[in-house]
Amino acid sequence: MGEGRAAPGAVPGAGRNVMLVVEYEGTSYHGFARQAGPVTIQGVLEAAIASIGGAPARVVGAGRTDAGVHARGQVVSFTFAGSVPTSRLPAALNANLPPDVAVLAAREVAPGWDALRACAGKLYSYTVLNRASPSPMWRRFALHWPGPLDEAAMRAAASELLGRHDFRAFRSTGGSAKTTARHVSRCDIERQGDLLRILVEADGFLYNMVRIMAGTLLEVGRGAMTAGDVREALAADDRGRAGPTLPPHGLCLELVRY
Amino acid sequence: MGEGRAAPGAVPGAGRNVMLVVEYEGTSYHGFARQAGPVTIQGVLEAAIASIGGAPARVVGAGRTDAGVHARGQVVSFTFAGSVPTSRLPAALNANLPPDVAVLAAREVAPGWDALRACAGKLYSYTVLNRASPSPMWRRFALHWPGPLDEAAMRAAASELLGRHDFRAFRSTGGSAKTTARHVSRCDIERQGDLLRILVEADGFLYNMVRIMAGTLLEVGRGAMTAGDVREALAADDRGRAGPTLPPHGLCLELVRY
Repeated sequence: MGEGRAAPGAVPGAGRNVMLVVEYEGTSYHGFARQAGPVTIQGVLEAAIASIGGAPARVVGAGRTDAGVHARGQVVSFTFAGSVPTSRLPAALNANLPPDVAVLAAREVAPGWDALRACAGKLYSYTVLNRASPSPMWRRFALHWPGPLDEAAMRAAASELLGRHDFRAFRSTGGSAKTTARHVSRCDIERQGDLLRILVEADGFLYNMVRIMAGTLLEVGRGAMTAGDVREALAADDRGRAGPTLPPHGLCLELVRY
Repeated sequence: MGEGRAAPGAVPGAGRNVMLVVEYEGTSYHGFARQAGPVTIQGVLEAAIASIGGAPARVVGAGRTDAGVHARGQVVSFTFAGSVPTSRLPAALNANLPPDVAVLAAREVAPGWDALRACAGKLYSYTVLNRASPSPMWRRFALHWPGPLDEAAMRAAASELLGRHDFRAFRSTGGSAKTTARHVSRCDIERQGDLLRILVEADGFLYNMVRIMAGTLLEVGRGAMTAGDVREALAADDRGRAGPTLPPHGLCLELVRY
């Protein structure tokens, strides 16, 4: 597609439809979605787009990450009315973004393409630092869990979560999803030294679903729940059967599939 | 050795001699060594020791890391006059340390043992993020280098630095070292995805030596210097022959050998 010109089929004057891959450290943000007062990822992206001549753009994100949640591969889309060529958008936007948000890639997409509606799946990681002492280096990116964890039991429980299930028991109130069945295609537990990573991929997620899945797997790891309890929690329409919602700072949106 | 009691041979009443392994994120600190005004690692460690009843303790560190430099395995020693058992010192101190400094381990050592004088060698890493875009997640821990790097040339140059050499050309003014010969036992370049890690182990380091070695190897990587230039820089008593001093935030004291 021609850079600096509208894509074939674009509404004249409306600008290019662009998708960006975005990395951010969510520590200082009130989540992805723009709000009236607090600083959000969507807000600083829209401000950066405005500052390079693309105002007023409304940015759509594939995942509405919560306050404190990070992303290594968030995908957003917006219509860009400015003249900066698409290949130069990452550098131009990064020069106008705070250091905790960065655009990794930009690509022109078909008119009407929307990062949220086109999303076919997402991969999240939840990182646990599993050692006696806390870590200054990992404190923003991993939950500190000093106790022993039975990884084999956690893997057995994780396999219960694989496949298509109704995840009603694994969501917090406040979400806007109309249906509660989701297909989990990956639920792995990987260890690298003191770091335990829970990787969850699904076609979609309910509100807080990964943080509750990770909390449930930690309950299994410490011996407070079994794989059978996880199977029963899935069968029950009861949030109380699943584990706790873990804090946001261990969660990271790794990538979005289209 | 008995916990909570003086080690055999200790001066009565002087307390136990203790060594700690310490991790810190150096971003907010004016280096390791205590200064009158600015916040330092030594300062917060001594304050934490005082707050658990060990005042006044003078902490000795194996490496006097500069402002902004991190450590995953700094080692310090001090005489502890308090009653907290050695095995409980990490938790007790961590409860009194800011979240960017943590004690990973504590051990009672022989009276007179000193983390600096006993040090036989140290391993430092210098981390470079080698990709087009900056990284919010790595911004505090890696130098962003967007251009191409010739890793084979860097490895050839790194091997020139191995062994015993006079490293006069690889030090900044302001150091207190009386001799300038050091033995470099490891100088490796490891890549993990977008991260390039330069690992340097030596029996001792001159002021800014790792940051200048890493700066020199980056000059080789980008084609501005050759392995032969590195050999000549080593032979010359001329700081101007080596590469630039890289910024502190990519540097980390990984471990100390005894």
